[in-house]
Amino acid sequence: MTDSIDHRLRGAWTPEGADAVALAPAALRWLVQRIGRLAPGAPLAPDSAIAVAPSGLPAAALAQLTEVVGAGQVLRSSEERLARSGGLSYLDLVRRRYPAAGIAVPDAVVLPADPDQVQRVLDVCVAHDIGVVPFGGGTSVVGGVSAVRGDKDCVLVLDLERLNRLVSVDPVSRIAVLQAGMRAPDAERQLSLHGFTLGHVPQSFERATIGGFAATRSAGQASSGYGRFEDMVTGLRLATPRGEWRLGVAPASAAGPDLRQLAIGSEGTLGVITEVAVRVRPLPETERFEAFAIDGWERGNALVRHLAQRGLLADVTRLSDVDETASSLALSAGWGTALLRRYLAVRGIAEPCLLILGWYGESLRRRREAVRSLRAAGAVGLGQAPGRAWLRHRFAGPRQRDALLALGVCVETLETATRWANLDALYAKARAALRDALGDPLVFCHISHAYETGASLYFTVLTARDENDPIGQWERAKHAASAAIADESLGTISHHHAVGTEHAPYLEAEIGAVGVAALAAVKQAVDPTGILNPGKLLP
Amino acid sequence: MTDSIDHRLRGAWTPEGADAVALAPAALRWLVQRIGRLAPGAPLAPDSAIAVAPSGLPAAALAQLTEVVGAGQVLRSSEERLARSGGLSYLDLVRRRYPAAGIAVPDAVVLPADPDQVQRVLDVCVAHDIGVVPFGGGTSVVGGVSAVRGDKDCVLVLDLERLNRLVSVDPVSRIAVLQAGMRAPDAERQLSLHGFTLGHVPQSFERATIGGFAATRSAGQASSGYGRFEDMVTGLRLATPRGEWRLGVAPASAAGPDLRQLAIGSEGTLGVITEVAVRVRPLPETERFEAFAIDGWERGNALVRHLAQRGLLADVTRLSDVDETASSLALSAGWGTALLRRYLAVRGIAEPCLLILGWYGESLRRRREAVRSLRAAGAVGLGQAPGRAWLRHRFAGPRQRDALLALGVCVETLETATRWANLDALYAKARAALRDALGDPLVFCHISHAYETGASLYFTVLTARDENDPIGQWERAKHAASAAIADESLGTISHHHAVGTEHAPYLEAEIGAVGVAALAAVKQAVDPTGILNPGKLLP
Repeated sequence: MTDSIDHRLRGAWTPEGADAVALAPAALRWLVQRIGRLAPGAPLAPDSAIAVAPSGLPAAALAQLTEVVGAGQVLRSSEERLARSGGLSYLDLVRRRYPAAGIAVPDAVVLPADPDQVQRVLDVCVAHDIGVVPFGGGTSVVGGVSAVRGDKDCVLVLDLERLNRLVSVDPVSRIAVLQAGMRAPDAERQLSLHGFTLGHVPQSFERATIGGFAATRSAGQASSGYGRFEDMVTGLRLATPRGEWRLGVAPASAAGPDLRQLAIGSEGTLGVITEVAVRVRPLPETERFEAFAIDGWERGNALVRHLAQRGLLADVTRLSDVDETASSLALSAGWGTALLRRYLAVRGIAEPCLLILGWYGESLRRRREAVRSLRAAGAVGLGQAPGRAWLRHRFAGPRQRDALLALGVCVETLETATRWANLDALYAKARAALRDALGDPLVFCHISHAYETGASLYFTVLTARDENDPIGQWERAKHAASAAIADESLGTISHHHAVGTEHAPYLEAEIGAVGVAALAAVKQAVDPTGILNPGKLLP
Repeated sequence: MTDSIDHRLRGAWTPEGADAVALAPAALRWLVQRIGRLAPGAPLAPDSAIAVAPSGLPAAALAQLTEVVGAGQVLRSSEERLARSGGLSYLDLVRRRYPAAGIAVPDAVVLPADPDQVQRVLDVCVAHDIGVVPFGGGTSVVGGVSAVRGDKDCVLVLDLERLNRLVSVDPVSRIAVLQAGMRAPDAERQLSLHGFTLGHVPQSFERATIGGFAATRSAGQASSGYGRFEDMVTGLRLATPRGEWRLGVAPASAAGPDLRQLAIGSEGTLGVITEVAVRVRPLPETERFEAFAIDGWERGNALVRHLAQRGLLADVTRLSDVDETASSLALSAGWGTALLRRYLAVRGIAEPCLLILGWYGESLRRRREAVRSLRAAGAVGLGQAPGRAWLRHRFAGPRQRDALLALGVCVETLETATRWANLDALYAKARAALRDALGDPLVFCHISHAYETGASLYFTVLTARDENDPIGQWERAKHAASAAIADESLGTISHHHAVGTEHAPYLEAEIGAVGVAALAAVKQAVDPTGILNPGKLLP
């Protein structure tokens, strides 16, 4: 599925033809009706239209870096530098359509071949006081891979794409060691030869890397069953300016704080992750995806809570709110939307919320009891077809976003999580903030990750783009939503997208001044000159 | 069950009559036979026989502390100070029998009433440069609550026993907030009034506190089902010299590193935990304890691995090795040991290893499939009687140790964990190290905690005490075992007993120089003058 992806980024998920990915006519009609306007906005600027300053990499540093990584592995062309100039947040994408807004372009791209070379690259960068942006799949949606300079005159992107090996598989302990630059599909392909899977399938799956998952505390679509990425990590190897750092001897330990959980989520600011040891599981022999309709959001999330608290969650558990469900139905006319609505009404479902459940292998043991609970609470089974439809389109979001961007739409997602008792309040406040900030946008929401004590909320926002101030338009909305979330610690500022630059202003509200001081102290200890990913994570 | 416990420590778990807890005659005979000698060793020294220096608490500090916590809450008598002079490691207990070896006695004991008072006590201690040893149940077996002075002239014990309230229960989110000084039985009693349980049952249950569980990354007997304590913690409140620190907004987050996992396991060196928000579960309506016999240790641990990797673990899963099983059988003659052995031999079990399984409530869903797996692999069911017997005696270990100490036995435990593929090597190396160091001691071992990727090993060692050098005798054995465990990172230096003073020399082997530097930096940031638990955790 990934063979068609050109992994260099050019301001879109699908660089070779973002504008050409047509939405279905029915979807277009529905969107026009809801958004009120749909007209081509500014197109993607070609590289040649973007002003790129010449590389400021000092000659001595270039020579030393070339000595470490070899000829041809230090890239300085505008095109290669532009291809690693930021991630895939809405702001990143919009900047490629309005290049006058300014794109932070690195001075060079360095491609080390192994962990030792990564370590030696850092040593060179310390010596020359060069900032280093670790770069995996480039799928950050929070500015995590922007070539921010901070106090550095020169910054380079450390592209880990050559660290793409499966280092080892321990089938007894079910632990695999993967190099950090390995993309998720490659990891799954190679693990499958040993009969194993990681089971980590975020929407960024096609592009994202193992190191990126660890650096950002990624959560995947099947995390209710397979766990968040941090739950899978048994060990880590990092390069830091202070030397190599290896963590993770045992599955669990009381040898002081769990420093793996300090390295995981450090977003390249405390070290460059070069290898990750992960728990793997046997490839499931069966899978089943199915859907249910539940009457209303509150009843729906109470049911998901019930499943979570009884240990009956499906590996994939995803509940859409009324508006997201309506859009799903409208956009997949194949199901016979009107008929379905009539059927649901007969079954007592006036405001359908769609629940997708996906079961892999042994998790099917829980299915019977889960389905019994759902039916007892009035959920109506929709069978496997809508489940399989979701599965087919599970990675479509970023492509649809590209298409919508080309059509002048402001479209972005944001996510949070909180305890169950706060969920409805958080839902209401975040929606209200987005609506106030953007006029009357479309706001969809789903729960994609449920826990015994709480759940995530994932919002999708669509509105007509303000072509006069596309960046300010979203920045204001995002700030309003983030402030509402962070206010009185109602929810986390990010459940699975990380901090980067875009959430950094809200971090202190979540971890406190003491927490910020603790992180800054670790940073100072392992990266005394501050070369690692300047401007990210820490406020 | 805890009403009989005097919570002040006097060199034994059962202070009011350690020497009087008789072992059964059969057990005594068996021990004499195996250990070769059993004679009263040095008795517990009465407080009056222990040289205690006068309190060095400055008058100005005393006045300020009294102002914070109130009259009568700053204790300076020798008896009160002695009662909080260390924990319950073998070395702690032996020092009470050989007081010339030296006992670190604090200058005072301070009893704050709430989190605010804890914060203000720290402020006073910073002003006077007084070391602070946070003290919960006092059950540390690694020197974690010893009144080590470090560079401080004066050190006080901050006894959290008055922070014993259930602060709140959120039944929807299933989160309870407990004050840190609450003892486990009190926590369970109060939670049970709301229909909930924590399910955290370490052997220290009767004395240990919620804050202590968090500070030491405790794991309980039912952790295979309920999770380790760090898995239960959703939030924390700490007092630090830099101010209050609150962590934990959502069940999961990608807002940078998980700093909860930095505070958990910090052993009082980064802050004093004052409140812990924990995930609770409904009180189970049923429970079932049962036992199986498996032929040989390797087959036994392969079976536990199989259960762990298929998601079929019982809440309590505990596999004894051949020697521990033999001692269990010998010590519980009620089962009809000889007959049982004959029965097992007929069933093909030549070298029985005892597997205890305990199921609570909904975990019984997994039982049928687990038992099918066990039988298919040749395990022989022993029914519920031995399971219930284990349950009755689950807290007996420390009492038996007291009795054995009085009989001149050197008896201690140590524990580690590693990945499955390393388990047999770790088992062999640790046993060999203990045997080499102690002549030919009894060494028992069990797996008490199993994970998909590995398991813990818990060793019990018994030998005749060297009355001429009881401390050196054990220190050498412990060093030999710890060095074998830490060598090439074969296992963790502690799976659930923490670091304290006794494991501190081996921490760097596990977390690396970079890890130590990171911890030291956090310490410096939150506790710049180093008043918090001097000499613990950090090498």
